Amino acid sequence: MVSSLELPASRRAEILVVGREILQGRTVDTNSNWLARRLTDSGWRVARVVSVDDRVEEIAEALREAIGRGNRLVICTGGLGPTSDDLTLQGIAEGAGVGLAPDDGALAALRDCYARLASQGAVQSAELTPERRKMALLPVGGEPLWNPVGAAPGCFLRAGGTTVVCLPGVPAEMKGMFDGHAAPRLEGLLEAGRFAEESLDVGMSDESALSPLLDRLRAEFPDLQVKSHAAHFGRGVRLRVVISGWGGDDEAIRKRALHAAARLRGLVEGAL
Amino acid sequence: MVSSLELPASRRAEILVVGREILQGRTVDTNSNWLARRLTDSGWRVARVVSVDDRVEEIAEALREAIGRGNRLVICTGGLGPTSDDLTLQGIAEGAGVGLAPDDGALAALRDCYARLASQGAVQSAELTPERRKMALLPVGGEPLWNPVGAAPGCFLRAGGTTVVCLPGVPAEMKGMFDGHAAPRLEGLLEAGRFAEESLDVGMSDESALSPLLDRLRAEFPDLQVKSHAAHFGRGVRLRVVISGWGGDDEAIRKRALHAAARLRGLVEGAL
Repeated sequence: MVSSLELPASRRAEILVVGREILQGRTVDTNSNWLARRLTDSGWRVARVVSVDDRVEEIAEALREAIGRGNRLVICTGGLGPTSDDLTLQGIAEGAGVGLAPDDGALAALRDCYARLASQGAVQSAELTPERRKMALLPVGGEPLWNPVGAAPGCFLRAGGTTVVCLPGVPAEMKGMFDGHAAPRLEGLLEAGRFAEESLDVGMSDESALSPLLDRLRAEFPDLQVKSHAAHFGRGVRLRVVISGWGGDDEAIRKRALHAAARLRGLVEGAL
Repeated sequence: MVSSLELPASRRAEILVVGREILQGRTVDTNSNWLARRLTDSGWRVARVVSVDDRVEEIAEALREAIGRGNRLVICTGGLGPTSDDLTLQGIAEGAGVGLAPDDGALAALRDCYARLASQGAVQSAELTPERRKMALLPVGGEPLWNPVGAAPGCFLRAGGTTVVCLPGVPAEMKGMFDGHAAPRLEGLLEAGRFAEESLDVGMSDESALSPLLDRLRAEFPDLQVKSHAAHFGRGVRLRVVISGWGGDDEAIRKRALHAAARLRGLVEGAL
């Protein structure tokens, strides 16, 4: 049984996507894919991705639920801008049970940003209007994360045992802030050891015939996840199998996955 | 306040995506975007998209939560295949509080499908092996949905006030089953009236300057959703505003959105 595999609770993370454009199908959410890859490669186990509307109570509810599921990490994207439908930090504050307060560092960064934009002629004035000041309202206890591409600061917050990181929704801003400012702060959170995966083309096209071989592999390697993927169905398909897992030692888990892949090749050769 | 807008509860739907490949960032989930567009255009309000792992308990929990949030509709994709990590119907049955049982119609469809594939040489035999029979195990009370592209049947199920539709994860199979067999069965579920949206280029590049105009528009059109979108930040950006809403009458809500768009053009001209 795949579902009986014990997964490492201390590596559990979720991604929370805020944006009506996702729910109305106007925008394909590629941010969560990019973040899922980054987090998985760093040893995190992404257990859920949740997309919600730009509404304070929906964001707050989603965060409370994610904290309740015992996640060590919640990464949130979208809704940090200056308009009044950018409600993520308000929702995160409510979900974490704290208020919002202006952050001096965030205000200074916004002042610099708009002074630069005004000198370039990209905005009409450098004045810190209420809409611009709004972006410096962070959940109390949160720390600003610098935005290397846009104006809106992100936020790094502890809520009980959960670390919450809020990133912008525009992909270039999200990626720049994650790699430059969020990822370095996450490094200390995880215990040692990483995720490893081996992906192999098994040279079979019938998933129903492959299935008993995968079950044998799972029985022999109960510590690993084994999953087959079919891009389409019928003639000409070549199934891929992904074998993955987490280990306390990078080298050991990599070898274990390689060992399982070699064993699967043997099982497939025996069956053909 | 955007978040005080009353949204139609009778149109509330969620999308549940099952697949470890999404959570590990190997595959971009495009299914939920396609479904969100289809559902929105049909008058549904997609309130959440949730992606979970291929584990019975996680799927069951996600369905129970979605039912608990009062959704009229839950569309689920992925995890219908023959391998033992295809656990969606088991999870959906558990979440709906029913058992699994073989469905005669689904078995007949699978028998036909594998006979055809065997005659084409795409599989070695037409025999209904345990792995192939597994795909005909549906939640009790569910009805099979025909798969026009692959083997695995889908499922149409009522769980209290919630209609649950399970579709395959392979995009071509998912789209074919939704348009051909699921969508026609959903038509009677919704009250009359549709969703309408107007998207306009406002010719501004500074979201913080646009924000007060959007707030005025929201005050004048409290029944509509108003949201601005910036693809990136700084010089050369042209912000788009999307105005959308649901109405009991197709023509009336379309006119209302057009009226709001014209009003916004006027507000922008006055501000420039």
